[in-house]
Amino acid sequence: MSPSSIHGTVHGVGLGPGAQDLLSVRADRLVRGARHVAYFRKAGRPGQARRIVEGMLREDVVEFAMEYPVTTEIPLSDPRYNDCLAEFYARCTAHLDALARAGEDVVVLCEGDPFFYGSFMHLYSRLAGSVPVRVVPGITGMSGAWTACGLPMTWGDDVLTVLTATLPEDDLARRIRDTDALVVMKIGRNLAKLRRAVALAGREGEAWLVEHAAMAEQRVTPLAEASEVTPYFSILLIHGQGRRP
Amino acid sequence: MSPSSIHGTVHGVGLGPGAQDLLSVRADRLVRGARHVAYFRKAGRPGQARRIVEGMLREDVVEFAMEYPVTTEIPLSDPRYNDCLAEFYARCTAHLDALARAGEDVVVLCEGDPFFYGSFMHLYSRLAGSVPVRVVPGITGMSGAWTACGLPMTWGDDVLTVLTATLPEDDLARRIRDTDALVVMKIGRNLAKLRRAVALAGREGEAWLVEHAAMAEQRVTPLAEASEVTPYFSILLIHGQGRRP
Repeated sequence: MSPSSIHGTVHGVGLGPGAQDLLSVRADRLVRGARHVAYFRKAGRPGQARRIVEGMLREDVVEFAMEYPVTTEIPLSDPRYNDCLAEFYARCTAHLDALARAGEDVVVLCEGDPFFYGSFMHLYSRLAGSVPVRVVPGITGMSGAWTACGLPMTWGDDVLTVLTATLPEDDLARRIRDTDALVVMKIGRNLAKLRRAVALAGREGEAWLVEHAAMAEQRVTPLAEASEVTPYFSILLIHGQGRRP
Repeated sequence: MSPSSIHGTVHGVGLGPGAQDLLSVRADRLVRGARHVAYFRKAGRPGQARRIVEGMLREDVVEFAMEYPVTTEIPLSDPRYNDCLAEFYARCTAHLDALARAGEDVVVLCEGDPFFYGSFMHLYSRLAGSVPVRVVPGITGMSGAWTACGLPMTWGDDVLTVLTATLPEDDLARRIRDTDALVVMKIGRNLAKLRRAVALAGREGEAWLVEHAAMAEQRVTPLAEASEVTPYFSILLIHGQGRRP
């Protein structure tokens, strides 16, 4: 059965890296007009996506906070981790699906770009085919980071590699050695391992750590001078040096 | 000497992938308010950046079209190519520098994100230190492409590699084999070579070609069914298949 036109639409809306005026015009309109908004967050935290739109929502907005049941309590390798998250995403999906089937549009607030390492994808793949789902791309966190750094990222034929710091150290090192430009995401508690991998690749002198890109607390530090602790959303950059007339 | 506050500012403004309402709110304000806009284009063409903002500019706007002196007439390997472009960028820079020194703000219209394979970077590196330059990040063309494709791009620990189709065939094949998710830009006349590289990597069945993402003429085709001709701004995608509870 194809999604009916009497159903509401679930919009996965990219909010960009963190500044309100870096929402797209389309995203801005959807967020300000929404009767229903939903967003992911850690239990007990305001949530980064929700924080970005502070002051933009309708007075009569209905909020649906989707609180992750686990983050670091269960290791990724434990099958219970997967089961727990699958059950959580199914529950969130059921709620959004019911709203849309009742004719309500829902805006799901997504940091950065929804299809780029975003939790929204887990809802998208479950909702597709049941109710109408639309995605609004956003400025990625990495674009926010390299703009904050004030240095062009990729020139000419530069190869760009995007990695998550959750990968094994050797794999990180090999890939960091084999690229021109580099972005590493999901750093947080993987910072020490990432440092070792960058050193193994012989590129310590080229690496920058960007924290809270595009936000008031924005901080850009050469990796060599960075402290031992950094937020999960920090981004490491190495800039390409390709052809430039 | 640091840029003086009596100087105007040169803004490198990312316009995103092509739809007007995918400009950021910040970019939208700058474009609509600009007395001076500048943009790159091929001689004799309207120019993609200028086309995106059609109907948005002030009535009294002063336009500065920066027309590439060469595109494909001189091979990249010929030193004259570099000389010719360097002279061109110097000339464009001098014009923008003079405007800013006369107190005028200038908005340079940039497709996608200015620091991601953008021509603006050649002006940025020449203007920096002379007059104030600010950059507004934009939604990249690749975000536009994977949103058009309707499939999430990177999950969990997926590695994303961004290549330009201008690289040698063997290098393309090796890197296409060695990544989870893939974006290839600057396709145009390199399409046949790129097809062979994707086949060498054994990934023909996973590849999509996206033309004119986010625009009225948007087209998404499995690579196997794509025609032999595609615009320079086409993007090839292979989606990551990483961890998903």
